[in-house]
Amino acid sequence: MTYATPLRDIRFVLKNIAGMDEISHLPGYEHATSDVVEAVLEEAAKLSSEVWAPINRTGDRQMAKMIDGGVKTPEGFKEAYKKYAEGGWNALVCPAEFGGQNLPWALGVAVGEMWQSANLALSLCPLLSQAAIEAIEKHGTSEQKHTYLPKLISGEWAATMQLTEPQAGTDLAAIRTTATRNGDHYLIRGQKIFISYGDHDFTPNIIHLILARVDGLPSGNDGLGLFIMPKFLLNKDGSPGKRNDIKAVSLEHKLGIHASPTCVMMYGENGGAVAYLVGDTSEEGKGLRNMFTMMNNARIAVGVQGVGLSEVAYQHALDYAKARLQCSKLGDKSGKRVAIIEHPDVRRMLLTMKANTEAYYAGSMIDWMRRNPDPVQVQLAAARVDLLTPLVKAWSTDLAVETASTGLQVHGGMGFIEETGAAQYYRDSRITQIYEGTNGIQSNDLVFRKILRDNGAEAARFMKEMREFLVDLSQKPSDDLDVIQNGMVKAVAALEETTQWVLANAKSNTEALAASAVPYLRIFSTVAGGYMMTKMAYAAHRALFTADGHADYYNAKLITARFFTEALLPQIYGLMAPVMGGHTAVTQIANDQF
Amino acid sequence: MTYATPLRDIRFVLKNIAGMDEISHLPGYEHATSDVVEAVLEEAAKLSSEVWAPINRTGDRQMAKMIDGGVKTPEGFKEAYKKYAEGGWNALVCPAEFGGQNLPWALGVAVGEMWQSANLALSLCPLLSQAAIEAIEKHGTSEQKHTYLPKLISGEWAATMQLTEPQAGTDLAAIRTTATRNGDHYLIRGQKIFISYGDHDFTPNIIHLILARVDGLPSGNDGLGLFIMPKFLLNKDGSPGKRNDIKAVSLEHKLGIHASPTCVMMYGENGGAVAYLVGDTSEEGKGLRNMFTMMNNARIAVGVQGVGLSEVAYQHALDYAKARLQCSKLGDKSGKRVAIIEHPDVRRMLLTMKANTEAYYAGSMIDWMRRNPDPVQVQLAAARVDLLTPLVKAWSTDLAVETASTGLQVHGGMGFIEETGAAQYYRDSRITQIYEGTNGIQSNDLVFRKILRDNGAEAARFMKEMREFLVDLSQKPSDDLDVIQNGMVKAVAALEETTQWVLANAKSNTEALAASAVPYLRIFSTVAGGYMMTKMAYAAHRALFTADGHADYYNAKLITARFFTEALLPQIYGLMAPVMGGHTAVTQIANDQF
Repeated sequence: MTYATPLRDIRFVLKNIAGMDEISHLPGYEHATSDVVEAVLEEAAKLSSEVWAPINRTGDRQMAKMIDGGVKTPEGFKEAYKKYAEGGWNALVCPAEFGGQNLPWALGVAVGEMWQSANLALSLCPLLSQAAIEAIEKHGTSEQKHTYLPKLISGEWAATMQLTEPQAGTDLAAIRTTATRNGDHYLIRGQKIFISYGDHDFTPNIIHLILARVDGLPSGNDGLGLFIMPKFLLNKDGSPGKRNDIKAVSLEHKLGIHASPTCVMMYGENGGAVAYLVGDTSEEGKGLRNMFTMMNNARIAVGVQGVGLSEVAYQHALDYAKARLQCSKLGDKSGKRVAIIEHPDVRRMLLTMKANTEAYYAGSMIDWMRRNPDPVQVQLAAARVDLLTPLVKAWSTDLAVETASTGLQVHGGMGFIEETGAAQYYRDSRITQIYEGTNGIQSNDLVFRKILRDNGAEAARFMKEMREFLVDLSQKPSDDLDVIQNGMVKAVAALEETTQWVLANAKSNTEALAASAVPYLRIFSTVAGGYMMTKMAYAAHRALFTADGHADYYNAKLITARFFTEALLPQIYGLMAPVMGGHTAVTQIANDQF
Repeated sequence: MTYATPLRDIRFVLKNIAGMDEISHLPGYEHATSDVVEAVLEEAAKLSSEVWAPINRTGDRQMAKMIDGGVKTPEGFKEAYKKYAEGGWNALVCPAEFGGQNLPWALGVAVGEMWQSANLALSLCPLLSQAAIEAIEKHGTSEQKHTYLPKLISGEWAATMQLTEPQAGTDLAAIRTTATRNGDHYLIRGQKIFISYGDHDFTPNIIHLILARVDGLPSGNDGLGLFIMPKFLLNKDGSPGKRNDIKAVSLEHKLGIHASPTCVMMYGENGGAVAYLVGDTSEEGKGLRNMFTMMNNARIAVGVQGVGLSEVAYQHALDYAKARLQCSKLGDKSGKRVAIIEHPDVRRMLLTMKANTEAYYAGSMIDWMRRNPDPVQVQLAAARVDLLTPLVKAWSTDLAVETASTGLQVHGGMGFIEETGAAQYYRDSRITQIYEGTNGIQSNDLVFRKILRDNGAEAARFMKEMREFLVDLSQKPSDDLDVIQNGMVKAVAALEETTQWVLANAKSNTEALAASAVPYLRIFSTVAGGYMMTKMAYAAHRALFTADGHADYYNAKLITARFFTEALLPQIYGLMAPVMGGHTAVTQIANDQF
């Protein structure tokens, strides 16, 4: 078995972290009944584990190839994508108006986790389509929506997100690809790199969303436009017609996600690629802002990739730990060998791999933001999503890499051998800390935008919510809950203290803030993760009284949350001093002293 | 430039951490004058950076291949090995009696760092020869020493270390390969896996040291013997003659160190491979103990690999950070792009990559253990080496992987592209946490052997030494030294407290100890690393008064040590609670609750 969908865990998290029951009562989500949710989960579990997962290793070995000027994906990938599109999976959270199923984002996160666990390289293609769909839905003209959304939502066509150039990575203001007005459209000329699924054989057309510098506009960010640039221009009837002036010229040779074609793209060898400004002409210089709609969507989706990878790397290591016999149990002199799961250090590693649910919480907040009839609540939910986005992206992906590495370590020497598969998770996961904004960029986003922009108001509201929950929790006596509650009260106070330091240094010491952002994000997201674990522990504690025959399962949740509180949460106490006092040297040292 | 030997740093560490001047006054090391040391460093720097480093990337791509039943190493590897052997580098720390240069181990560590930085995959071959040389020197008969050591020390032949079998990794008592007495020799039959350089084209003969189960002896550890098993049996004149019944049947496809052939080996297809017991017949059941001579040597050498990889990954990232222009300096609105080394978070990452010198200290302790005329001091040095071995192996290699990962992150998206080279360090370094005993095994070795065996005596002596040094330091006023001294005093107290907990739970709670061993090792090694940084800071402080024109360099050492104390050392406060209270869940959770 390469991947067994953890349906019971997903249901538990949907109920207790995402609050699926409450979400399904929001206006517009009435059709998301528990039957529908259950059916969706079960069908996605089948497709992901039976079709997507089995080609994950072969895809890594075969890799995407460039053949005769086009990309050929590994065996089985095209068919697996087709089954995904035909099953309506691409349409899950999309608007009904254009053929979507309009189901909650929280459910989208659950299903997304399955694709990511099963096959990260393949999942990247629809992930980018989803982001493009949201950008067109939010910023496109009515005509653009009607032209592109139905085909993108059905998955008949795929989309890409084209930003990076050799000199313009984090620094998108440095983009040089140009867009020149030419009647009702623009002509794009230039080159981009690192374009995931810039070309492929899944769909008869690819709709590229590209950021380019508009001729005649000022330099810098305000000169960028976001454009729709189809691989094949559309005929009058909407079908793909003439090939646009776009070429994928080569593929990158990467550490991981080998099956995902990472393209170098060229436009304009024959005069210019035809492209259409997203929205009306007033949007000409607003490309960066419009692109960020895609980007924020993609950042949460990459966080979900982290969740999915952690899950599958955990499963993979657990299987091995149960099967591999090595050494006797501690203290046993009989010479009888036991499975390595019996060894305390292996148990510690396995337990460490089990905490990664912030993305579900973020997904539920998107639903509250979209569907709550109360505009004040919508604004609060939006602020929460803003705050959570860098946490979800950076923490979930940091944990994914750590989890994949721990999984490799559980395998011992076998982990280093590619055939085992653990090494692929280690390689694949590493990109998630980089793309859609490196985790360093996420940390700076957290500090300079999410915390400082509202002077810490939303962060304070989140901490207040945690404290209130913990007071509530203290009424429910249980040994495990006591330990968890005490640990979390202390941790929230530590987060509070560190956040106060960030606010106090907002104006006077921005260099220190920038140098402390990464450990600060780690503190914030670890405490938020502890809050999720606490919620799950409390839910498990309540469920124990239902005597539904799953006491072992609920106890396992309590034990895992206790482990998080006792063994992982305390790492924040090793990060407070670095945040508040670890920056002197960073600013003192001269460049040539490195 | 792929690797520029950091000669100035190496000299500084040799002087101030290893105490090279004092070592060169030990009896038997009189010839290790400063002129000789300097000449050795400069020549090794040339060979490593000019010959070994340039084939590191090509070796990764070409990989070792199995061709016509034998291993073919990548282009240039055989020649690079030959230059190494001809230069006398293999003989550096070996005994003069058999053609060695008998130079100090501390110098061996310095030179070893260079090979590892330049080309980890290639360096593994001589690393294993060194370990075998030590085992034969310590446990072999006089005839064996005279037969094999001169050729191995000169590098004319290479050696291997053959332990692992599919069912016997950490658990060597499970070895099934057999050795049957046959007159003056034994016949070996069986199979081994994960044999580094089990076959290759560097040398006309390979001397395998193999652990096998002796027919007629009891099962378990006491039935194992250590044998010399040459690839080609020796003619009367000592030259390689008839091919022994040994075959490398296949190579593993690995995550990293692709140029190093990792062989599956078979012996006895034609009756049995001829092998000779290391030592006389009384050594028949002492193979495991004798093998551990090799293993301890190899563990420190793997720690040096960690140092070397950290250094080269740091250099590589630093070069990129100085060259890559991206975004404006914090707060600058002019739009002028700067090298990313100007960004505080990148500076934080670069500074984090700079602390890894415990292996030098361990090397110097080996010299004191070998050469001190006072037997009491010899015993103390031996106890220190024992204590340091797991710290050096685990911490240096953990840091190497973290450093390689940070280096990759500094490169952003380019880091994920194989051509950049950062990904290779990330892949290559990962094996160092596994081989020669996983870092989990090192942690258990630290707790159950190195701490508990003498009831914490040597650990206490080490902490006392640190405290005394810190008192001494408090006499020298300087802002940086003050910060460092205060931080270290607190850290040593934390180590003391945690060590007391380990001792208090020695008998009653061994499962908790086993579950806490990894974070405990991290605390111990981080504090020990802080001690090294403090020594360097103090040396730099003193050197500032010499006004030798290198004030910038010494100040950089002070700033780096301050960074370590303020930003990295505090991580131990996040690990104390996990050590002392993070094990409840590990023991509570049932296997099927994972």
